[in-house]
Amino acid sequence: MAATFFEFLEARSREVNSLLCVGLDPHPDDLPEDSAAGARDFCLRLIEQCAHHAAAFKPNSAFYEAYGPQGFQVLQEVIAAVPEGIPVVLDAKRGDIAYTNEAYARAAFGALGTHAMTASPYLGQDALAPLLADPARGVLLLCKTSNPGSGDLQDVTVKGEPLYLRVARLAAQWNRLGNLGLVVGATYPDVLAQVRAAAPELWIMSPGAGAQGGDLGAAVAAGLRADGLGLLIPVSRGISRAENPGARAQELKEGINAARAAG
Amino acid sequence: MAATFFEFLEARSREVNSLLCVGLDPHPDDLPEDSAAGARDFCLRLIEQCAHHAAAFKPNSAFYEAYGPQGFQVLQEVIAAVPEGIPVVLDAKRGDIAYTNEAYARAAFGALGTHAMTASPYLGQDALAPLLADPARGVLLLCKTSNPGSGDLQDVTVKGEPLYLRVARLAAQWNRLGNLGLVVGATYPDVLAQVRAAAPELWIMSPGAGAQGGDLGAAVAAGLRADGLGLLIPVSRGISRAENPGARAQELKEGINAARAAG
Repeated sequence: MAATFFEFLEARSREVNSLLCVGLDPHPDDLPEDSAAGARDFCLRLIEQCAHHAAAFKPNSAFYEAYGPQGFQVLQEVIAAVPEGIPVVLDAKRGDIAYTNEAYARAAFGALGTHAMTASPYLGQDALAPLLADPARGVLLLCKTSNPGSGDLQDVTVKGEPLYLRVARLAAQWNRLGNLGLVVGATYPDVLAQVRAAAPELWIMSPGAGAQGGDLGAAVAAGLRADGLGLLIPVSRGISRAENPGARAQELKEGINAARAAG
Repeated sequence: MAATFFEFLEARSREVNSLLCVGLDPHPDDLPEDSAAGARDFCLRLIEQCAHHAAAFKPNSAFYEAYGPQGFQVLQEVIAAVPEGIPVVLDAKRGDIAYTNEAYARAAFGALGTHAMTASPYLGQDALAPLLADPARGVLLLCKTSNPGSGDLQDVTVKGEPLYLRVARLAAQWNRLGNLGLVVGATYPDVLAQVRAAAPELWIMSPGAGAQGGDLGAAVAAGLRADGLGLLIPVSRGISRAENPGARAQELKEGINAARAAG
């Protein structure tokens, strides 16, 4: 494995020329059978169909936990089913004090075997430390989320700038081992551009370009790093609900690449 | 069951004259056997020993998830083992967009059967809505956490006051169904007093009075509601690591009650 999570992600991204992250979210509405077994089949099929086009896969823990212990078992199986060489980002948005985040690190990186996870910045740097202790395991920190109400807290003005920019600057400082990135919704391309300027080196995962209505081209133009990498575009429903998820993943990958070329 | 989660909690609190919330955190250091089975035995014993003195029980999801699917199974069993009439608060600090928080609500209130959960305010009101949809199920929203680094984000000044006070005021507005409370660390009694003034009606859960070094008397004086309720004091390691956890729970309950009487 590469020395840091983001080196691993970059190697994969170059290998398949893709910034697409395929979401593995077994929502009951999308399953032929509303059960943990149905969730597993749904995810294993998506992995098989989309692996050639995926820079990474991203299961969201909530949709597995909703099936109880069997769902958690399926989450473990789904992560294990992702072919070697493809990073898995567990979308769990965890955040507790350090003593407890140590247990979340054991859960995500140990029991579940994921390469990276999403986390909340609300508790501050000391709380995040256990999640960042191993450079080979990454954290994507919530900065500006894609939902309409994200401004309630994230947009408040702190010393003349929005809180999300403060989070971006803090993350750039906290990234001592090269394993910390950010989450910024593709639904706010102007914000994505501001965050990119505030944290020029960090990887940014930018959800919301699919079902949530964000503009893919605008997000790529705003969020790409100077080296043409540094931006991971997760799409879940936009792929899983397509007639042909594999073809849709290829189309999205190529759409992102066209926007990269235009930038 | 009572109409709202906090009516349920108040009925229990009056019944046993207690504001003590007993933490169920199976940290490996405290288990005779480092396994999911060891975690289950540890928690079932704590429930039995402390039930007479507990206004509520609070399992922290992280310590169960660390054991993988078996741990999640144990979490379900532990919640089911809490005697009827005693509220269970799942300490999970979840927070995602509304579409995903619906799944977290199904996980916590459905699959796991807890009465309340802790959640992060970072994503704003629209994200929290699915967690608050059923008045019989409660949410305790992170406001000012007990850890040393909580100030990184929570203390930033917004329009002349710290962000945590803004969260407290927002929570008072968002509490439309009477099922939203706050989490404020007992390690910051002055903050607890400010939050109590900003949200005079809300229940506040105030961790940190045990192993984290907060002063119990100061927390009770600062956080109690005018009716002598409204404050839930969770203690985990301070009970589970005692020679006799049941006796320690009784002592803590009585210490809290002495501070209430003095107030």
